Amino acid sequence: MSGNGRLRVGIEGGAGFIGGELLRLLLGHPKVEVASISSGTYPGRPVFAAHPNLRGRTDLRFSPALRYEALDCLFLAGGPGEAMSSVPSILARAGARLRLVDLSGDFRLMDSGLYPKWYGREHASPGLLHSFAYGLPELNRPAIRRSRRIANPGCFATAMALALGPLAKGRVSGSVSVTAVTGSSGSGAVPSSVTHHPTRHSNMRAYKPLSHQHVPEVDQLLRKLAGGKAPAISMVPLSGPFSRGIYAVCQAEVSKTWTAKAVKALFQTAYKDCRFIRLVDEPPSLNAVNGSNHCDIYATALEGRLCVISALDNLVKGASGQAVQNLNVMMGWREDAGLDFAGCFP
Amino acid sequence: MSGNGRLRVGIEGGAGFIGGELLRLLLGHPKVEVASISSGTYPGRPVFAAHPNLRGRTDLRFSPALRYEALDCLFLAGGPGEAMSSVPSILARAGARLRLVDLSGDFRLMDSGLYPKWYGREHASPGLLHSFAYGLPELNRPAIRRSRRIANPGCFATAMALALGPLAKGRVSGSVSVTAVTGSSGSGAVPSSVTHHPTRHSNMRAYKPLSHQHVPEVDQLLRKLAGGKAPAISMVPLSGPFSRGIYAVCQAEVSKTWTAKAVKALFQTAYKDCRFIRLVDEPPSLNAVNGSNHCDIYATALEGRLCVISALDNLVKGASGQAVQNLNVMMGWREDAGLDFAGCFP
Amino acid sequence: MSGNGRLRVGIEGGAGFIGGELLRLLLGHPKVEVASISSGTYPGRPVFAAHPNLRGRTDLRFSPALRYEALDCLFLAGGPGEAMSSVPSILARAGARLRLVDLSGDFRLMDSGLYPKWYGREHASPGLLHSFAYGLPELNRPAIRRSRRIANPGCFATAMALALGPLAKGRVSGSVSVTAVTGSSGSGAVPSSVTHHPTRHSNMRAYKPLSHQHVPEVDQLLRKLAGGKAPAISMVPLSGPFSRGIYAVCQAEVSKTWTAKAVKALFQTAYKDCRFIRLVDEPPSLNAVNGSNHCDIYATALEGRLCVISALDNLVKGASGQAVQNLNVMMGWREDAGLDFAGCFP
Amino acid sequence: MSGNGRLRVGIEGGAGFIGGELLRLLLGHPKVEVASISSGTYPGRPVFAAHPNLRGRTDLRFSPALRYEALDCLFLAGGPGEAMSSVPSILARAGARLRLVDLSGDFRLMDSGLYPKWYGREHASPGLLHSFAYGLPELNRPAIRRSRRIANPGCFATAMALALGPLAKGRVSGSVSVTAVTGSSGSGAVPSSVTHHPTRHSNMRAYKPLSHQHVPEVDQLLRKLAGGKAPAISMVPLSGPFSRGIYAVCQAEVSKTWTAKAVKALFQTAYKDCRFIRLVDEPPSLNAVNGSNHCDIYATALEGRLCVISALDNLVKGASGQAVQNLNVMMGWREDAGLDFAGCFP
Repeated sequence: MSGNGRLRVGIEGGAGFIGGELLRLLLGHPKVEVASISSGTYPGRPVFAAHPNLRGRTDLRFSPALRYEALDCLFLAGGPGEAMSSVPSILARAGARLRLVDLSGDFRLMDSGLYPKWYGREHASPGLLHSFAYGLPELNRPAIRRSRRIANPGCFATAMALALGPLAKGRVSGSVSVTAVTGSSGSGAVPSSVTHHPTRHSNMRAYKPLSHQHVPEVDQLLRKLAGGKAPAISMVPLSGPFSRGIYAVCQAEVSKTWTAKAVKALFQTAYKDCRFIRLVDEPPSLNAVNGSNHCDIYATALEGRLCVISALDNLVKGASGQAVQNLNVMMGWREDAGLDFAGCFP
Repeated sequence: MSGNGRLRVGIEGGAGFIGGELLRLLLGHPKVEVASISSGTYPGRPVFAAHPNLRGRTDLRFSPALRYEALDCLFLAGGPGEAMSSVPSILARAGARLRLVDLSGDFRLMDSGLYPKWYGREHASPGLLHSFAYGLPELNRPAIRRSRRIANPGCFATAMALALGPLAKGRVSGSVSVTAVTGSSGSGAVPSSVTHHPTRHSNMRAYKPLSHQHVPEVDQLLRKLAGGKAPAISMVPLSGPFSRGIYAVCQAEVSKTWTAKAVKALFQTAYKDCRFIRLVDEPPSLNAVNGSNHCDIYATALEGRLCVISALDNLVKGASGQAVQNLNVMMGWREDAGLDFAGCFP
Repeated sequence: MSGNGRLRVGIEGGAGFIGGELLRLLLGHPKVEVASISSGTYPGRPVFAAHPNLRGRTDLRFSPALRYEALDCLFLAGGPGEAMSSVPSILARAGARLRLVDLSGDFRLMDSGLYPKWYGREHASPGLLHSFAYGLPELNRPAIRRSRRIANPGCFATAMALALGPLAKGRVSGSVSVTAVTGSSGSGAVPSSVTHHPTRHSNMRAYKPLSHQHVPEVDQLLRKLAGGKAPAISMVPLSGPFSRGIYAVCQAEVSKTWTAKAVKALFQTAYKDCRFIRLVDEPPSLNAVNGSNHCDIYATALEGRLCVISALDNLVKGASGQAVQNLNVMMGWREDAGLDFAGCFP
Repeated sequence: MSGNGRLRVGIEGGAGFIGGELLRLLLGHPKVEVASISSGTYPGRPVFAAHPNLRGRTDLRFSPALRYEALDCLFLAGGPGEAMSSVPSILARAGARLRLVDLSGDFRLMDSGLYPKWYGREHASPGLLHSFAYGLPELNRPAIRRSRRIANPGCFATAMALALGPLAKGRVSGSVSVTAVTGSSGSGAVPSSVTHHPTRHSNMRAYKPLSHQHVPEVDQLLRKLAGGKAPAISMVPLSGPFSRGIYAVCQAEVSKTWTAKAVKALFQTAYKDCRFIRLVDEPPSLNAVNGSNHCDIYATALEGRLCVISALDNLVKGASGQAVQNLNVMMGWREDAGLDFAGCFP
């Protein structure tokens, strides 16, 4: 704790979009003090060099490296593969008391054997995997409460899991087909051909059809919720011509006797105490959730076909907002501390 | 025929986006003369009042009404429900020799009993339905060749049918799940809440989930191709934050023994003589087809899951370009007359 | 005051975009209670019917009419011409103690003779004009502090006035040329041809060249600041293909001896105590200010040419945020109460 | 000439956006055969690897290098600084008979002393500068007709010069203030921070204020047209959130006696035989010119202030279309050969 009684947090790899949103949220959190933030690209420079929205709102500068031992909680917002390598030495320096929230995919899959297939590398610290709780509070709150280490879900994974969690047990026949569209901010702050404005603008393009790495973490969660076998997921991700948001459309076959009303009731029960889940009567809009930690969900059925649609901000509920929510749950604080706001509209 | 040996065509309801694209294409067609174009909104005004891209490219003005008897072919580009009411009197005036291409949904479904459910009205001229051929040349060319009257397919329908046509016979288990995204130009030239820029921009929103009216025309075509039962289609349309294009993602269960290579070969065979279908090895991009009459299609399978993706310009291959292609097929001209160009990129 | 010691405020005409942002901001204001909000379009419906971002964040519903006598402060967010007609009867009912912040253009020009030319109508309440202070705190704070009635500036006017205020006195030769781009949300929530997505998307279009109605309110302010003659403004507004923001580029001739450094120093002095003005060393970006009450300003000179660029969110600093800021100044509260946040980036 | 009587042309550096548009236009040109196209990035690959719109429309592949001696005309579409270095050796191989159209900025300024300031390098072939004609046909047609070598204007330069050319002689007092917005395709096909979609989307940002390198080529042309001193240009370029187009707003002081009608008449006279210039009665829209070689211009005056607005497609009239137009003028062909089409709308 800092002298003012606030939790001292640090952000590793803070110059990316996720790091910027995390910093924005944590600067407004009533129980937290951002002690330091690191970046290898902007060492020594004010944070507004990377995050121009934060100009005039903080005097923080990027550090080349963090003093882990001075922190109560560390958010890992670096690139894929970094956290799995660095966490052992971080813990060696700071001790097991240090709380960790990893926003990469490095600790999401409990089975270390899955990493080569989905992430293209052997896991560097397989012994640590089971010390992390999967950080989707609405569907895994008890485990998060008990844990000091959180694997924050992927953005697509959050959208899919929230849409499918209530259906994990025996409602669906066959596979669930998911088509989900992401904004370009999901590809991060480093320019590349897939985020080149002239060709991303006004365009739609699928990628990794049937083989996106966020599917196995949802599989794992659904099986846990089902207590065994859960519906298989077939997913096609699309790159959309907007900056923020995930819009996921899930379809499946269900019993013809299952009504739209019954589907809705199931979701109302599942999410009745969930501050950030808003069940909507018409298909949701991205611009109603962007900028906030809300996920809007629509669920219906018609003549044996099920349709569930979820919409969220990929950088907030799909990343940094959820990381703060996980911190709140871990600490036993109000779940919406620092997250109690709506986004702008339109 | 006009004095210069060109086919004399007219456009009814020519002030909309479809009418504008049709006019642009027909002005460049080597065998056609646009005799007249009507609009109730812009009577007497130059066509560039509605279509500013055509300023300086034609001296045509909108007529309040067309002289059908002076035409060889009439394109009907008016609103829903207009053509089904007006065609009988048009034919009475112009005679059965007049060729018709209807770009509305008024003559697509052969079963008149389906109109109340899908279009919210009884069909006004059910006796004429069977005189129209469904105008998707790649899958229904012989019928178009024999016909003088064409029901031009819907934009979503074209994208779905081209993706699913080769699969109509016995390849797919269960339903096909389609999620398809449309640009805002598909909603036409009259402003409304669903095309209000502040809320459409950067947004994604589904509508008519599981109940879009383009599904039954694809059902009808697939059953014809299958010679009986065909896979059921479950479709969720999305409004995307761009002006042009349809991007359709189709997923289904198939035999686990069916390989990506075999899927691709099936499509190559099905479309081997189709000038406007381009089979691509990676998921297609809208910006590669927009502005042209091409439809790019990607088809693959992985571990029992099939994915077919089609991309086209909703106003060209999904409407006006296809109407010109249908004219070409009806007349026995080169199928790409007036359509032999690429769109701009990017 | 309400029972909890908060100021009781109402919003008239609250279903538009400005009303929605005002409600969002006031719901988070520590010293305010939103007592009621009216709408003629959505009477009796929850506010999320118009503002879907606010679903789950308030139980407020739109009233058909407000009880002015129960309010401490009224925000007028209705259409042009409404406030000038209704204010006399509102004051008759509620008494002169009621604080007013008018977000329309109805009370911005002190000279009633200007309304026919710029707003197309005679002023309905000319006797009230001088009771309103022009609500641009950075340039008119003392008058706002003394007033109970505020004429909130226009969005373009705010951008121009903040860029030109420090130059009002004798720095500029000849006219100032302003070209300023606005997002589509500035045209409000009612669809029209100028905000039709298919034609607004990817487009640029000027309108009212040299004759926008926000110019005379800036003229009036600059003359007040200059204590006499101020530079004339020549302005061309552009409609841009984005939803939020004003980006104003101002150019003028100045003495060749005036350096970039001296220009910057002038602005630093002028805005040294202004929390929401951020002077930037490179031309600003809209996405650094959108969603916040900041205005980023860049000012430079080169070889006798001056360039000042300002960027702000048209709905926040250009409307609702500034209205809250004006409330804070009137009440003697911290100027950033309820406004102490950054926008999202990117 | 090729065996079929067509002019044999080559494109150097053909994998960029300008190269792609040039190829698209030349493939449709009735008097030209594209003999070869080079790219260092895609050697040996089909042109659709870089230009996916051209899939199925040509069998051309990128060559690592061109055989200049087999060409009648060479289009240079490489990066800045390449042409000034390579032209001497190209001419040595191919002979002075080879026609050249350079689309870079390497041969636009006749005064070699200007290159260090505006392009950051000494000119590598100053002796060749005067052999190039400045390729803006509407304002420099006679020189282009007489030349075998063309310096194709910049995109901003084309927009500014067409807006200001008729005003070169003595109409304007003081400087002309230009604010001009460009689409992202103007930055080319290689990703960079200024074209990163998440931050370019929905954004506006000025760059190089008062110091863009396209200004001196317009200065040079205006002085030539004026036969001496011409108005100085002060320009601020903006990056807009769209892919295609230049929208230039020019303002200046003029005599108060000069009417809007007189301004319009001046432009009508100046451009009366110019196929691609369309004078419009309301401010133009980018989406009316994009995809075509048209430039729409609006000119007016009010109470001593002049406003001229020009809109064009940066890749067509601002680059590749103009290059084809220059070829047509050089060859004595119809000026619109291969360019006789409208763009899509919307």
